[in-house]
Amino acid sequence: MLSIVLIGTGNVAQQFYAAMSNTKGLKIIQVIGRNKKKLSPFKNCPKTATDYKYLLNADIYIIAVNDDSIATVSQYFKNKPGLVVHTSGSMPLSILPESVRRGVFYPLQTISKERKIDLTEVPICIEAEKIEDYDILRELANTISAQVQIITSEQRKLVHLAAVFVNNFTNHLYHIGNELCNETGVPFTILNQLILETAKKATQMPVVNAQTGPAVRNDKLTMKKHLELLNNEGYREIYSVLSNSIQKTHEKKL
Amino acid sequence: MLSIVLIGTGNVAQQFYAAMSNTKGLKIIQVIGRNKKKLSPFKNCPKTATDYKYLLNADIYIIAVNDDSIATVSQYFKNKPGLVVHTSGSMPLSILPESVRRGVFYPLQTISKERKIDLTEVPICIEAEKIEDYDILRELANTISAQVQIITSEQRKLVHLAAVFVNNFTNHLYHIGNELCNETGVPFTILNQLILETAKKATQMPVVNAQTGPAVRNDKLTMKKHLELLNNEGYREIYSVLSNSIQKTHEKKL
Repeated sequence: MLSIVLIGTGNVAQQFYAAMSNTKGLKIIQVIGRNKKKLSPFKNCPKTATDYKYLLNADIYIIAVNDDSIATVSQYFKNKPGLVVHTSGSMPLSILPESVRRGVFYPLQTISKERKIDLTEVPICIEAEKIEDYDILRELANTISAQVQIITSEQRKLVHLAAVFVNNFTNHLYHIGNELCNETGVPFTILNQLILETAKKATQMPVVNAQTGPAVRNDKLTMKKHLELLNNEGYREIYSVLSNSIQKTHEKKL
Repeated sequence: MLSIVLIGTGNVAQQFYAAMSNTKGLKIIQVIGRNKKKLSPFKNCPKTATDYKYLLNADIYIIAVNDDSIATVSQYFKNKPGLVVHTSGSMPLSILPESVRRGVFYPLQTISKERKIDLTEVPICIEAEKIEDYDILRELANTISAQVQIITSEQRKLVHLAAVFVNNFTNHLYHIGNELCNETGVPFTILNQLILETAKKATQMPVVNAQTGPAVRNDKLTMKKHLELLNNEGYREIYSVLSNSIQKTHEKKL
C-alpha cells in the first residue's frame, strides 16, 4: 500500500484524486491546499489541511500546484522521508530541493475542470533522481494509467514544447476556423468531422505524408485569394508563416 | 433512379464511386478520365471512357477533377440536359459555363488515397443555381451522407479557408510536434491522446474556453524558454505569431 499526500487543489490535483481515491494499493491520506474553500472537492479524504505544519508522513508527496509555486512549496518537504514529485511538464526535476528524494510525475494531457479525463489513456511521464525510486513511481503510475514512460528533464522540456504546438496552438487554429464560420453564418460544427479525422490521421499515418492544401501544392492563386479573404491582420500573418513553413518542409517535393 | 456520370479518377472520385456504386436509387453509368490506367479502380462500372465524345446522357454529372481543370472540363457539358456539379471547396459555382444547369457538391473532409473515409459522416455542402435543382442535389447527398447543408459560393469560400486552418495548418503543427519529439528521442505516439482529446474537446465545448498554455496565461518566462529551445527559425516565428494571436484573442482576460 502506497500512502500519498496530494498538494494542490486545481485541475490536476482533482483528476489525480479521482483516479487514485478508489484504487487498490493506493491511499491518499491527506490533501493540502492554502485555500479552505478549494479543499471542498476533497472532503471525503481522511485529512485535509491548509497549513504544512500538519503535514503527515507518506510514501509519496505529489505536488500539483502552479509551476511558479513548486519551488516554494517543496521547501516544506525537506525533512520528510517520502518521495517528492512535481507534476509539471516544463519544470526540471532540479526545481525541487536537493535534500529531498525527488522525482517527476507528469500526465501528458490537457486537463481542465469542465471535462472528466480517462487517466488510464493518459501517458504518465516519470523521472526519478535515484534509480531505486523508479520502482515506486512506476507502481504509482501503473495503477492509474496504461501508458508509463521514463522521460528525463531534458526530454520533457521538448515534449512539453511539442504539446504546446499540438494542443495550445492547434486549439487557436480551431478558434480561427470558428471565427471564419461565424463571419459567414455557417455553424462551426460543420468542421467537426474534419477536425476529428485530421487528428485521427495523425495518430495512424506519418503526418508529413498527410499534409494537404494549397501550400504543399504550391497553389499560389488559392493562397492569394485566401489572404484577401482574411480581414484580421494577425490571421493573415499566421496564414503566411504557416504556409511558408509547410513549403519549406516539403521543398524537395515542390 | 438517378443516373450519374463521374468525371475524374482521383481521391474524391474514388470515394464517391465507392459510396454511390451500391446505393439504392443511384446508378453510376459512366466514369470518364483522361488516363486509361487511372480508370482501373472503376473497372466494374458499366462504361468508362477517356474521351468526352463518348459522354452519355445522365441526370447528374459530377466533376471531381483538380480545381484548375474544372473550367476546361465543364465545357463538354454545354449541350447536356443533366445537372453539372463540381466538388471543389474553393471554386465558385460560376466557374461552370452559364449555359448548363449548374451546382456544387462539396464533401467537407480531408480525402486521401491511403484512408477509407466513412462518407456518411462527412458534411456534403450543396449549392444549385436553380431552386428546383436543390431537390435532386439533396436526394443525391442524402443517399451517401447524414449531413447535408446548403452553402452559397460566398460562404463556401470562407468554410474552405476555415478548413485550411483546422486541417492543413493543424497537420503542420503536428509535424512540428513530431520533429521536436524526434529531436529528443521520444516517440511521437506519446502525443496521440493529447492530439485526439484536443480535437474532441473542440467539437464538444466552445474552443475559446478550451484555450490553455503559456500564451493565454501570459507566462513570459515559459514562452522565453520555449523560444530558446527551438533551433528552427521558422518554428520560432510560428511560436511567436501564434502566441501573439492567442494573447490578442484573450486580451480582456489577461
